[in-house]
Amino acid sequence: MQNWLIEQLQRMNMSDALVKPEGFTREGYTSEETNAIAVFKAIAEELGLAVAEDAAGNIIARWEVPGGESAAVATGSHLDTVPNGGAFDGGAGVVCGLGAVKMLKEADFEPQRPIEVICFRSEESSRFGVSTIGSKAMSGLLDPAIGALEDQHGTTLAEAVNSQGFDWQNLSKAKRPKEQLKSFVELHIEQGMHIIEHKKNYGIVNGVACPIRLAVTFSGKAGHTGTTPMDRRQDALAAAAPFISFVQETALQLNDSNGKSLMATVSTLTSAPNSMNVIPQTVTAGVDIRSVDDSLKKKMADAIRCEAERIEQATGVSIAIEVLVDNPSVLLDRSIAQELADAGEQEAYLVHRMDSGAGHDVMNMAQVWPSGLLFIPCKDGLSHHPDEYATAEDLKMGVELLARFLMEATTK
Amino acid sequence: MQNWLIEQLQRMNMSDALVKPEGFTREGYTSEETNAIAVFKAIAEELGLAVAEDAAGNIIARWEVPGGESAAVATGSHLDTVPNGGAFDGGAGVVCGLGAVKMLKEADFEPQRPIEVICFRSEESSRFGVSTIGSKAMSGLLDPAIGALEDQHGTTLAEAVNSQGFDWQNLSKAKRPKEQLKSFVELHIEQGMHIIEHKKNYGIVNGVACPIRLAVTFSGKAGHTGTTPMDRRQDALAAAAPFISFVQETALQLNDSNGKSLMATVSTLTSAPNSMNVIPQTVTAGVDIRSVDDSLKKKMADAIRCEAERIEQATGVSIAIEVLVDNPSVLLDRSIAQELADAGEQEAYLVHRMDSGAGHDVMNMAQVWPSGLLFIPCKDGLSHHPDEYATAEDLKMGVELLARFLMEATTK
Repeated sequence: MQNWLIEQLQRMNMSDALVKPEGFTREGYTSEETNAIAVFKAIAEELGLAVAEDAAGNIIARWEVPGGESAAVATGSHLDTVPNGGAFDGGAGVVCGLGAVKMLKEADFEPQRPIEVICFRSEESSRFGVSTIGSKAMSGLLDPAIGALEDQHGTTLAEAVNSQGFDWQNLSKAKRPKEQLKSFVELHIEQGMHIIEHKKNYGIVNGVACPIRLAVTFSGKAGHTGTTPMDRRQDALAAAAPFISFVQETALQLNDSNGKSLMATVSTLTSAPNSMNVIPQTVTAGVDIRSVDDSLKKKMADAIRCEAERIEQATGVSIAIEVLVDNPSVLLDRSIAQELADAGEQEAYLVHRMDSGAGHDVMNMAQVWPSGLLFIPCKDGLSHHPDEYATAEDLKMGVELLARFLMEATTK
Repeated sequence: MQNWLIEQLQRMNMSDALVKPEGFTREGYTSEETNAIAVFKAIAEELGLAVAEDAAGNIIARWEVPGGESAAVATGSHLDTVPNGGAFDGGAGVVCGLGAVKMLKEADFEPQRPIEVICFRSEESSRFGVSTIGSKAMSGLLDPAIGALEDQHGTTLAEAVNSQGFDWQNLSKAKRPKEQLKSFVELHIEQGMHIIEHKKNYGIVNGVACPIRLAVTFSGKAGHTGTTPMDRRQDALAAAAPFISFVQETALQLNDSNGKSLMATVSTLTSAPNSMNVIPQTVTAGVDIRSVDDSLKKKMADAIRCEAERIEQATGVSIAIEVLVDNPSVLLDRSIAQELADAGEQEAYLVHRMDSGAGHDVMNMAQVWPSGLLFIPCKDGLSHHPDEYATAEDLKMGVELLARFLMEATTK
């Protein structure tokens, strides 16, 4: 099983290696993502699954059960990556889902209801600033207005969707009736160190920390760098600098003083005109705030607003804050979590119950269907990084956990 | 004369207006620059000047004097702009040079030696990080290695030169023998407020502050913004933030404690991968340091190196500093300055003697030929900005000053 998992993951990553110095770049709604998904389809068909593509380009690979219950038990994840990301974020969940089907088929298991492995489109927010587009569409949570969002090359999300052979106007047709699924479970790499630090084998997630995301625009005044006196400037980048430091320091402090953790990051920054001899006129900074505790996220966002006002008054650079995303954190289904824990017990793996700092497709699915999230460890907690890595042993554990869960969930 | 100046400046700017909300974007070695230069050629020919183009694409518009002295007295400036810059930075010097020729011709003046109006290529450093490429070529100061410098789209300087019909390999052929020119004078907008604040009409420049320019690269570690604990990060942008503040604050302090002025600006910044959900891994900041006092520039650069070491130790983000440019400041010719002052006195304009914080083509010409630099005021001191503006009256004053100087310099 371990060799098969590595081989299939390599096939979907179009590479003989699962760690490369430059990582993997396979952004949402690009031909790179489409090519990887074509391999997913091929593997699913090799396993005898019925493959369907929905209006958003999500793939539903289904183990049909003629005459059984109609509501399927589903698992799945995604195959897109951030730029220079790793082969396991998303890929681990997809390959373990397929591996679980393979394991159950080889054991001649006969499910009483369908099993599905779903590959969602465009989970990462790196391209358009909005995450989990495919699972939003499937869960009926898609906001049509986001079709106008542009990537850094000026391509809109709608154009990107259409470029891959779909029609943005039809994306909402990917919404599935509630009765089609009984439950959904995602498997994902942890992207952190909690499992290892607690000396456990895997994680079951209680809640997913959804982000508040802000676009903060500093509008100063351009001018010649060699002639504009230092005390008469409205340098947008010089105004953004204490803001970046403030976000970092305040997030550190809020972690010190609270049991619950908070992450806040100025993750994007563009400066214009970005010319060596021109004082920066406009800086746009993207801020990503995460915690399972929504009040802590709000506290951070409020502190950012106060600091922006202070900087505005001190520098004369005007600051506008736009809320890109403000989603409450998502609690996952307790009975699914218990079923996952039971599966782990039967397979003799030690569980760590935890929260997820990152968003995943499951947070959308959980709005409609009882849902759960399994974590397997990843090396040094690294993710969104070329060194992202999970061992073949942990992938195999993921298969065993999923297979056991799917077996129990489709015999009841 | 005022109407003629405005009309010709509009023609060269391809616009009925000299101030536009989006400014003018005409970068070095682009077809936009080439088109503006074609208009310069046409106007020069309308004035009866002999027009020649050198290997670098500089235009030499020459008032031939058959039988007179051979060494010409030259004036000139450039027509390229920074992105979203103004119509006067460079353009003022070019149009006033042409205007002076027109004035002298209309007065039936008969020079004893040739007069030249030169339009230099690619003066601004905004595209390739290196300034005054055309005048470097003419003065024999061109470093062939800079042909490999890339603009933000990955086009090299050599490719850009070739795209405009020149051959980078031949650029050094633009070097002129010393005996071809007697002197060079540039007229430029001040890009500052000193003339107005001293209640004078125009400026004569003693020295040009050439920059030290640094590329500072912060190498941290990428990671997921939602799962990487705040106290285990090597966030390149969070490390760059105190650096930006340091440059700003130190430059302010060095101005407080010194009679001579210093400007230091973090003028460019790029962050990678620049994704909303990834911790910044690599930040590159461009620092522009200017003063007529070379020791003050060195003091600032040394302080930056110390601060980089401090940040490196405090954050674990490694910092590399590359010196892009380190040119000593240029003192201009004292007797040319006196001749310019004499011209101003004859025309009854009040002069302010000053230094230039910005580099200009004259700083290269001054390495070979006795050279001078005249400033005319510009509105609010603004330059490299769409609101850049100089009045028709001040342009006309520029013509009168240049015409008087050229008259005296070509009768001796």
